[in-house]
Amino acid sequence: MNETLPPLRIALAGIGTVGAGVIRLLEANRDVIAARAGRSIEVVAVSARDRSKDRGVDLSTFGWEDDMTALAACNDVDVVVELVGGSDGPALALARTTLERGKGLVTANKAMIAHHGLTLAQSAEARDVPLKFEAAVAGGIPVVKGLREGTSANRLERIYGILNGTCNYILSEMEDTGADFGETLSEAQRLGYAEADPEFDIEGIDAAHKLAILAAIGFGAEIDFNNVRTTGITRITAADIAQADALGYVIRLIAEADVEHSEDGAKLLQRVRPCLVSKAHPLAPVDGPTNAVVAEGNFSGRLLFQGAGAGEGPTASAVVADLIDIARDEVGAPLSIPVSQLVKMAPLEPGHRVGSTYIRFTVADRPGVLAEITAAMRDADVSIESLLQKGRAGEGEDVLVAMVTHEGPEKCVSEAIGLLEGSDSLTAAPLVLPILPD
Amino acid sequence: MNETLPPLRIALAGIGTVGAGVIRLLEANRDVIAARAGRSIEVVAVSARDRSKDRGVDLSTFGWEDDMTALAACNDVDVVVELVGGSDGPALALARTTLERGKGLVTANKAMIAHHGLTLAQSAEARDVPLKFEAAVAGGIPVVKGLREGTSANRLERIYGILNGTCNYILSEMEDTGADFGETLSEAQRLGYAEADPEFDIEGIDAAHKLAILAAIGFGAEIDFNNVRTTGITRITAADIAQADALGYVIRLIAEADVEHSEDGAKLLQRVRPCLVSKAHPLAPVDGPTNAVVAEGNFSGRLLFQGAGAGEGPTASAVVADLIDIARDEVGAPLSIPVSQLVKMAPLEPGHRVGSTYIRFTVADRPGVLAEITAAMRDADVSIESLLQKGRAGEGEDVLVAMVTHEGPEKCVSEAIGLLEGSDSLTAAPLVLPILPD
Repeated sequence: MNETLPPLRIALAGIGTVGAGVIRLLEANRDVIAARAGRSIEVVAVSARDRSKDRGVDLSTFGWEDDMTALAACNDVDVVVELVGGSDGPALALARTTLERGKGLVTANKAMIAHHGLTLAQSAEARDVPLKFEAAVAGGIPVVKGLREGTSANRLERIYGILNGTCNYILSEMEDTGADFGETLSEAQRLGYAEADPEFDIEGIDAAHKLAILAAIGFGAEIDFNNVRTTGITRITAADIAQADALGYVIRLIAEADVEHSEDGAKLLQRVRPCLVSKAHPLAPVDGPTNAVVAEGNFSGRLLFQGAGAGEGPTASAVVADLIDIARDEVGAPLSIPVSQLVKMAPLEPGHRVGSTYIRFTVADRPGVLAEITAAMRDADVSIESLLQKGRAGEGEDVLVAMVTHEGPEKCVSEAIGLLEGSDSLTAAPLVLPILPD
Repeated sequence: MNETLPPLRIALAGIGTVGAGVIRLLEANRDVIAARAGRSIEVVAVSARDRSKDRGVDLSTFGWEDDMTALAACNDVDVVVELVGGSDGPALALARTTLERGKGLVTANKAMIAHHGLTLAQSAEARDVPLKFEAAVAGGIPVVKGLREGTSANRLERIYGILNGTCNYILSEMEDTGADFGETLSEAQRLGYAEADPEFDIEGIDAAHKLAILAAIGFGAEIDFNNVRTTGITRITAADIAQADALGYVIRLIAEADVEHSEDGAKLLQRVRPCLVSKAHPLAPVDGPTNAVVAEGNFSGRLLFQGAGAGEGPTASAVVADLIDIARDEVGAPLSIPVSQLVKMAPLEPGHRVGSTYIRFTVADRPGVLAEITAAMRDADVSIESLLQKGRAGEGEDVLVAMVTHEGPEKCVSEAIGLLEGSDSLTAAPLVLPILPD
């Protein structure tokens, strides 16, 4: 609020889509940013792989460093904005050096925070410099702030949501078009909604990075990416989506975390997996590349944050919001509480958790198959709520058997599937999708 | 983060539902609050009308003041939490005195902030003390923070949403039960979703208070409650809800604000009114006492914040989140930018705004009425997209004519209605409901 404050001077490392977006945003919204930040925010230096590439923004007025780590050493830089990506390598080297030099760091790098967030936060706290990463989770949605500050009065009971726009785009496209996974993925790649190498997205790893970050902030736990139980969406078929629809559900890749307290201490369950979501649930209408996060607090009740999960504008919006917080000097522990006070929580084995499940079997078309499946269910104490067998499309083709179980322990479903393992009645591994509790 | 920081000492004025909730929350979540705030938050004094009333919380360990204004003078109080309510009177006196004494103020009082927020913010800024009011808007949803900080990098283009839980409860109940307004209101009163004197809620005034606050923060404008164009929900009938449903819409009380820039400067349009909302719109599934706010930024795109709009737990959650921000010293200009830099925006006359409209006429059942109505539409240049005449229920009863217009200037609809004024074909004033643009 002091109008004589000097500008906040930033350096940008990595000028791809988001970096160019940050430059464009700082220019387009210069006046409102200065008013809200109480000072101007100025880019003083940039670094990227190729200086001559046309990015649609003018870099000529900024200093240039070929070696991005040099940005951390520039005397006229207050904050380095890391938009290079990758959990390790140059991005991590830059992040470490920046904090060690006593400068602030803003990053959109979910992989780096998921893997190294604890040590980076420690480094920032030791030097009392800001480390912020709103853009690392759910693009333009202020959900890191939402959990760090908005729900800060609460003991959070559950955090879950849709954290990967590529998967959500593919699943909602499959819903709309009836097309199968492979074909929809190709189309998504053509349209720019999926990367050429889509593994991080479609295998759920990207969502797992984000979930690990949110869980740490929300539950006061040490970030534990390695124990996120992750399943992607590659096995979802058009038939599954049609079945789900007939039963009143859509399929969404859901990232979900909660904590169980027992005599052994707090245990953290983190999972990313496709789920059946009731059409009446607030996450069901979330389609296309949109992201949404639900946080359930013991006083706030259920809060929903929704918006664009990626893209130049939304991600730049999150990066610059962090810069404005820094300019205002409204910063504190990066993970909401100091690293030294975060609890190291053991991963929870979820077999005792109770829920309903959708199971799809692909079976040979011959007598006795249904008896074999239902016997396995009975033997594992799984109670079937509804079962649908779909006639084969043609002679000799496989038959689809889809069922929804009554609520029961997850381990019973695993046991039933185990009993059927190796059965030559099944022509493919069964697909097990939990039904998202309300 | 300094573990030796002294506690943040607060005084509570008003111990109704929310006040008792704040006390319960501070106790139940003591450990997580201290970890996140970096210090403990302690109630040291309270004031309420009746000391002996059983509130389900133990007040015996706190100091007591019969005169709540005395809380502002207590030397051991850092922040006063005002939960008394009312735009003026004792609440305002307490707020002013608190800030003048250099103490922080946290309030859930939307009416007071809507009417006196500018002078209170000025007083806070002059003394560099915090003034925070997350709980004044949309209960437990961190939307003041969302707009103040989450979208801070953006030029906001439009803010709109569902800001009154009572109206939303009534409208979604009417939807579910087919009952009429009066009967649903009585039921809502019986269940505690509506006050004994419901005027502030059902006439849209409560939503207007909240909208005026959000518009100021989002658009950098001076708070201008007096120019919120406000229409309540009392004229909505079961027939309107059924018509809307048949056309693919639900009816919601929508609070909406945007800014138009012209040679005359920026003009602010603020409206609260029932609208038809497409069932495909993210606000359509928001039912019961839930609130939701959409903010559209020029870089973030559309962001949605949703949650419980009122109630003990959610409102207490918002109050204590503000206290945690204060304990962390993460506070700044109450309205995001200093009062001296807020723009005084003239109210916008919206006649030129283009949109589609639902119009319901209640007419006498006799020849020529439809011709008279459609002629008025033609003469005012209103193009009709669909028209439905519902047969009268019995001999001599009124007939309902509902239409949806093509997109056109709002003033044409007003003109058409004007042409029909005084016509003895109409047995009641027509009901005009805008269709919420996507």
